[in-house]
Amino acid sequence: MSEKRTEIGQLGEFGLIDKLALLAPSLSEKTLLGIGDDAAILKVSGDILLSTDMLVEGIHFDLSYMPLMHLGYKAVSVNVSDIAAMNGTPHHITVNIGLSNRFSVEAVETLYKGIFSACKDFKIDLVGGDTTASQTGLLISVSIIGSVQPDKVVKRSGAGKGDIICVSGDLGAAYLGLQVLEREKQVFQSNPNMQPDIEKYQYMVQRQLKPVARMDVIHELAEQDIVPTSMIDVSDGLGSELLHISKASGVGVKIYEENLPLDRMVYETAVEFKIDSTACMLNGGEDYELLFTIQQSDYEKLKNHPDIHFIGYVQDQTAGNVLITKSQHEVPITAQGWNHFNS
Amino acid sequence: MSEKRTEIGQLGEFGLIDKLALLAPSLSEKTLLGIGDDAAILKVSGDILLSTDMLVEGIHFDLSYMPLMHLGYKAVSVNVSDIAAMNGTPHHITVNIGLSNRFSVEAVETLYKGIFSACKDFKIDLVGGDTTASQTGLLISVSIIGSVQPDKVVKRSGAGKGDIICVSGDLGAAYLGLQVLEREKQVFQSNPNMQPDIEKYQYMVQRQLKPVARMDVIHELAEQDIVPTSMIDVSDGLGSELLHISKASGVGVKIYEENLPLDRMVYETAVEFKIDSTACMLNGGEDYELLFTIQQSDYEKLKNHPDIHFIGYVQDQTAGNVLITKSQHEVPITAQGWNHFNS
Repeated sequence: MSEKRTEIGQLGEFGLIDKLALLAPSLSEKTLLGIGDDAAILKVSGDILLSTDMLVEGIHFDLSYMPLMHLGYKAVSVNVSDIAAMNGTPHHITVNIGLSNRFSVEAVETLYKGIFSACKDFKIDLVGGDTTASQTGLLISVSIIGSVQPDKVVKRSGAGKGDIICVSGDLGAAYLGLQVLEREKQVFQSNPNMQPDIEKYQYMVQRQLKPVARMDVIHELAEQDIVPTSMIDVSDGLGSELLHISKASGVGVKIYEENLPLDRMVYETAVEFKIDSTACMLNGGEDYELLFTIQQSDYEKLKNHPDIHFIGYVQDQTAGNVLITKSQHEVPITAQGWNHFNS
Repeated sequence: MSEKRTEIGQLGEFGLIDKLALLAPSLSEKTLLGIGDDAAILKVSGDILLSTDMLVEGIHFDLSYMPLMHLGYKAVSVNVSDIAAMNGTPHHITVNIGLSNRFSVEAVETLYKGIFSACKDFKIDLVGGDTTASQTGLLISVSIIGSVQPDKVVKRSGAGKGDIICVSGDLGAAYLGLQVLEREKQVFQSNPNMQPDIEKYQYMVQRQLKPVARMDVIHELAEQDIVPTSMIDVSDGLGSELLHISKASGVGVKIYEENLPLDRMVYETAVEFKIDSTACMLNGGEDYELLFTIQQSDYEKLKNHPDIHFIGYVQDQTAGNVLITKSQHEVPITAQGWNHFNS
């Protein structure tokens, strides 16, 4: 590549920070002081929500197919998703980056363009962070602050018997997007002249590379005056998240295979990859959709929503956590989320 | 070593989190919900302070002489120091850890013992975090939330002409501690039968390995009803921090070499290492003392404080940033803080 390459050492850490500051969107009135002091000063009312996530190269992403701009966006979006899952509104993030000398100033700028693009989409301010060297790859650690009115907060622990289990969007696409990207990487490695063939898989690849936290669902629930009884975002896979709600709430869940939200492209791609599409939805992970439970009395308000799906019911803990298959068999739900330490 | 070694893969991420939770001190009433949901829920009044720091193995620490328990303590303490530097009180932290398979469950427990020891000392709650695999060494990313009443917040930007420049504790010890540890490492590598000879350097080694954020100074200033006009913590070195205050406040600073707080052991060790002790104090870094400016009218209240030193005055920006040496020469202050990207 003949693109311009500036070494980070030429600018130094402070020079790099000054350069990145030029890309930053202007700050909201919730930020009394942003980057540039020992800490940011923030004005937030209500209960404070705090969450954090770290993405490590070679573990959470592969830069051979993950564009840096998407990676920046995703690092923010997955944190926003955690605030959404508490029924909250995100306000501020800090971003710590570790960089090996493989990365140029231009690469870091591209990463931050993605970070700032997400900040704009979700109306949040970047108010601090640390940029340090790393002996190997890239690491991104994001922390996020949001807020919620005390009577609107939604935990994993509030699901009650008879509540309806809902999920936004569709499931399994991000997992299949990863399979597509991994396959194309193999093809490219065995023959570098091959052009990647991902156009027909664009939806799934996009879901993997640039997931969008469902703040739109949170706003719609608020407009309908619905406070879910429990909520979690689907990061590890629907099965794993259902078990989290079940455990935290002391209940059982019953979901129906025929009600799971399956996109046509996801179905076709699962067939092509000889993977069971229900397994993709249950265990795929990284969809960053919202899984939540509502009281039956709220069903009328949501029943015509095009993007919220009613997949089952909350039942007694003793009745267990089960999936009713299309052939009417009852199978236990298990967590098969990705365990980094065993992979 | 014959110590017990449990692989992290045997427990999995959730098992590891459960095990660490047993070590955690109980949470304060400021924490409505701690670890275990998508985000923590916090009750904080006043303006919110938010800061973050990342420590990367091989860049910020060397595990051949940094005990994991101290590392955990230090990772928290350096963040507390940032909240102190805003004249705030720390309340909550999140900790993200990246671990290669070199680390056992027992090693991670030791690290968290240090983290929780600092939580106890500084009265803060650990309310969230991510534990992931890393392809190389250990990385620790800590974010911290504190608070401050709006009329008590201290930024870098408030220093005014005539203000007195103060620094807590003494300077240069942490840097010399690092020199001692590096020397002993070389000795050990060339002859593994040599016992490390660090007893007489204990003070400096301790300052390097386990710095204690000066929350005591913040409490004392509050008791005396003193709000500094500007403040910063000494992480990169006194020279670099003075220039931050000078730039942010639009002023110049004049400090006196004879007033710089030099510990006797620091002086003797600097002589032994053939390093100028004033250079250690100005450029050493990692002391995590507080550098602040006060109005002259507050001097009477502080003048007999045994651990606060008056090192100079704020002057006009046009008069520059200068050190008056013991021989009455005026030399410009320069930032020689550590640049990771050039080292």
